[in-house]
Amino acid sequence: MLKKVINPYEKLKEVLADDLSKVSELIKERMQSKHAPLIGEISSHLIGSGGKRLRPLLTLAAAKICGYQGELNIHLAATVEFIHTATLLHDDVVDESEKRRGSSSVNILWNNSSSVLVGDYLFARSFQLMTETGRLDVLETLSNASANIAEGEVLQLSASEDITTDEEVYYKIIRGKTAALFSASTEVGAMLADADKDTIKALASYGDALGVCFQIVDDILDFVGDGDKVGKNLGDDFRERKLTLPMIHAISKADDKELKFWERTIVDGDQNSKDFEKALVILKSRSSINYSKRVANKWSKTAKKALTDIPGTPLKCILEELSDYVVSRVN
Amino acid sequence: MLKKVINPYEKLKEVLADDLSKVSELIKERMQSKHAPLIGEISSHLIGSGGKRLRPLLTLAAAKICGYQGELNIHLAATVEFIHTATLLHDDVVDESEKRRGSSSVNILWNNSSSVLVGDYLFARSFQLMTETGRLDVLETLSNASANIAEGEVLQLSASEDITTDEEVYYKIIRGKTAALFSASTEVGAMLADADKDTIKALASYGDALGVCFQIVDDILDFVGDGDKVGKNLGDDFRERKLTLPMIHAISKADDKELKFWERTIVDGDQNSKDFEKALVILKSRSSINYSKRVANKWSKTAKKALTDIPGTPLKCILEELSDYVVSRVN
Repeated sequence: MLKKVINPYEKLKEVLADDLSKVSELIKERMQSKHAPLIGEISSHLIGSGGKRLRPLLTLAAAKICGYQGELNIHLAATVEFIHTATLLHDDVVDESEKRRGSSSVNILWNNSSSVLVGDYLFARSFQLMTETGRLDVLETLSNASANIAEGEVLQLSASEDITTDEEVYYKIIRGKTAALFSASTEVGAMLADADKDTIKALASYGDALGVCFQIVDDILDFVGDGDKVGKNLGDDFRERKLTLPMIHAISKADDKELKFWERTIVDGDQNSKDFEKALVILKSRSSINYSKRVANKWSKTAKKALTDIPGTPLKCILEELSDYVVSRVN
Repeated sequence: MLKKVINPYEKLKEVLADDLSKVSELIKERMQSKHAPLIGEISSHLIGSGGKRLRPLLTLAAAKICGYQGELNIHLAATVEFIHTATLLHDDVVDESEKRRGSSSVNILWNNSSSVLVGDYLFARSFQLMTETGRLDVLETLSNASANIAEGEVLQLSASEDITTDEEVYYKIIRGKTAALFSASTEVGAMLADADKDTIKALASYGDALGVCFQIVDDILDFVGDGDKVGKNLGDDFRERKLTLPMIHAISKADDKELKFWERTIVDGDQNSKDFEKALVILKSRSSINYSKRVANKWSKTAKKALTDIPGTPLKCILEELSDYVVSRVN
């Protein structure tokens, strides 16, 4: 394990800076609508300048590692960012509904409408962009990924409030909602470069494991993260009664008293202001945070291992470091 | 104008019965999700057996008119039905937000989440289906249509409550939200059959004009339809403050007193139980219903005319009759 990891995400942005700025240009151009200016207003808020652009970076990196020389990598990088933004917009609606049951405001509801429709627009734009590449293999991968994302999200909806949710279901959920697009992002980069089958598979596996790792880390940080760094409130998943790895582990180890606690807070949704603290105490006593960290580290290694047979280039090294970096947030 | 039109929609279903049943089979197969059973439950409710299947019928008819002999027409017909159903699901969220401002229930909100996500799933499934055809021209047409639909819906959102909305904006809205998919449905049928450019264009124009006509008729029926036949409440558009052709016409002719009425009811949203009746009286005195009927009839003729150069076959005749039939609901 690396003692001190120099931020490989920043390295990736630096190495791919020229391409990334072309991606941002294309995103700005394609998120506009000639007829409905509202679309551009909302989209530019979301993806105009900001955003981590992690998925486009993965596409650009995979294409470059495989020696791609053309210009369509820009299209595909913009495509995966559009799909990602569309799912974020739709997640907002889903999370709002879950969070704000029984209370609603004009503002929230107006946002619901525009979140749904602007998400649909960006999703359609992503299909236009990928169609322009003329690559049916890429279209197949990305349309499959889109179906998997929606499937994962629906599964998450069905599994919430259900304390019988096990790790198998958890993996299905996060493979859909997160890993599917990570994996497709690297896979289509390699496809575009006409890489051989094994290389395409290796890069897809890297993206898959990185995505799984990324999501587990996110789910751990929702319990023990530094609120300022994570950029959201601690305990959201607990309050939204979303079963993630730390909780699933703790519930599997629960004694009768703890089981009653989980039933009250997660199944019945009867929570008071001290319950999140109580949940944390249980998670720690059951070593559920440590268990989840070990699992995240395992996936980080799986990601790195997937790249074994890829020729060693500086860019490959950055991807390897990235898999350490993703998990370093909880180590 | 035909005096008595024998229902050409039923004729179309009869002539294309074999293909249509294959479409229904494919829809049932593809709307399922291996991992998330909730998807199949919701989808089957919506498209499992019911539905007019008007758009798939248009695709099947266009392909057959152009002499298509293969099996991919079934894929494309299922594709357009999936896109249509996805937009219906998302419309529900948008309309609910508009309608139920300030009041919400667990049930409505739960439906919001699943409507969004199952809609996304069906949308992704539609892209998988069209990708399987391996036809990039078809993919381009359908991804463009999807973007146009979302654009039209957003435009409708921006234009609601705005009494300066004019006919130009109205056409942009309905061309997006309705005609784009009608037009794509016929166009891709012709494309699949490798029809010549003029034939493809003629069938796309037919779909476009039929879609515009269909939507104008729908908007008229929202004021003067037979509630039982229309299958929804009269006055929904008025209450949701959605500007459609009859209202846009009446507002353009309004005197000061009427303008105050429209400002109160549409801009301010201050409506009482007698306002819809009052709106109807104004629409009739300004001949706005008759005006809208004339416009709908014009589009019906435009649809029929688009088929002029297509060789006369029984199926072509049914499409011609269909353009009469669509408008016959208000004549």
